Amino acid sequence: MSWFEAETAVERVTDVRWSAHVSGHWNIGTNPNGGYLAAIALRALRQLGPHTDPISVTTHFLRPGTAGAAAEVITEVLRVGRTITTARATLVQDGRARLEMIASLADLASPSGIEDALTIAAPPIPPPDQCVLRSGVEQGIDLPILDRVDIMLDGEQATAGQAGAAEVSGWIRLGDGAPPDALALVLFADAFPPSLFGLLGNVGWVPSVELTVHVRRRPAAGWILGQFSTSDLHDGRMIEDGALWDESGALVAQMRQIGLLLSRADASGG
Amino acid sequence: MSWFEAETAVERVTDVRWSAHVSGHWNIGTNPNGGYLAAIALRALRQLGPHTDPISVTTHFLRPGTAGAAAEVITEVLRVGRTITTARATLVQDGRARLEMIASLADLASPSGIEDALTIAAPPIPPPDQCVLRSGVEQGIDLPILDRVDIMLDGEQATAGQAGAAEVSGWIRLGDGAPPDALALVLFADAFPPSLFGLLGNVGWVPSVELTVHVRRRPAAGWILGQFSTSDLHDGRMIEDGALWDESGALVAQMRQIGLLLSRADASGG
Repeated sequence: MSWFEAETAVERVTDVRWSAHVSGHWNIGTNPNGGYLAAIALRALRQLGPHTDPISVTTHFLRPGTAGAAAEVITEVLRVGRTITTARATLVQDGRARLEMIASLADLASPSGIEDALTIAAPPIPPPDQCVLRSGVEQGIDLPILDRVDIMLDGEQATAGQAGAAEVSGWIRLGDGAPPDALALVLFADAFPPSLFGLLGNVGWVPSVELTVHVRRRPAAGWILGQFSTSDLHDGRMIEDGALWDESGALVAQMRQIGLLLSRADASGG
Repeated sequence: MSWFEAETAVERVTDVRWSAHVSGHWNIGTNPNGGYLAAIALRALRQLGPHTDPISVTTHFLRPGTAGAAAEVITEVLRVGRTITTARATLVQDGRARLEMIASLADLASPSGIEDALTIAAPPIPPPDQCVLRSGVEQGIDLPILDRVDIMLDGEQATAGQAGAAEVSGWIRLGDGAPPDALALVLFADAFPPSLFGLLGNVGWVPSVELTVHVRRRPAAGWILGQFSTSDLHDGRMIEDGALWDESGALVAQMRQIGLLLSRADASGG
């Protein structure tokens, strides 16, 4: 069992309650990564119906999770259809809801027969061994999660405030070499540095209010390429878009989130 | 009271239950428009806490609504914070859940003090009087909703299958001249023709699985400009992105949805 499987595992307690443990190995600073917490809730949701691939999963982050502590996932099935199962989950720790999720799941290995017409091509970035290891120093915070995922950033964008654009791209994989699955893509969608950091410098922790991931294909084994950008920052709230491709160049997920910029280092001279 | 206010009104029955009536005036074909149904649920959610502007609202469409029939909205407050209220709602008709919603609401009139850095400029399209009235004929279905909203499409994109790109833009306003508010933006985000129709022709009804709208600013009075595009159609599921601007040129909302393409008219020679 991979680290990711073991540390996002849920155990069924009743029809609607699951127990889990939030590891401290997936932290951004002192808080568990949001995509990691979401993966725990999704592990429960994908056991509720016949469909296991999250084609649309929205998570609202109500409060930070607590690392190294027990958690409970409360689930509700909203509809089990022929091709789509929709369900919701609340992840609770110490009696307080940490996140609320709603997801539609399908079977991405079951083709519809409708011809493809459009896709988003993977951007040309250098291969992983020519990229730069993601470092917490650049973002101004500790990143224990780097013990669990390898992140190699496109070098031109890897220095805070030097990219001249709110754009980050690079490669990501599970640190123990386990192949990525649809659930890992939800984690990967939330594991890169905030794309604002290329423009604004060390923006610190940018808490997500809400994150939506659309998984488009089950990924091939190997590295996953991610590209993220922010083109809309207003009143301290930013909308960040991103996409993930597998090593074959296939688009495997899209993501969008609304996050909070708590301060602007560049504006205060920091 | 505007048509939109009157026909999305909810009446509190208990702390968690609201009664409503789904009008037949907002139909796409024989089904109530999804953005219209979402607005009914949002009317209830915005009364649960001190925050009334939906900065992030995600709706999963479980089953089509029934026009001309009563509805019930069941709500749950997830968290009331200092700056954000998060809540969920289920819209039920005839004992069956039609949509599930989760929303974070804030006060868009209360500035954060953090300087803006990035926005998306409104695209240059002709003014409304030089655009083309949206017609159901082009999409191959009746559009009763056109009695309630005026939609003027950029002429170059207004003919099915002739645009050469999956892109639609134009202007929208409430049909009775009422000024738009944050709630109307959620409706407007789902009221344009599917952007796929410029590329593929008459695609018919493209049911939304999930729609997320981020309201960015309260809109000024007047027309709202909308631009929508699809760059990812795989296995019968399309991801459509869009944005809305008010007449001052300010970005007022972003949207993304995952929808189902039920058939491809062009592929079958239709």
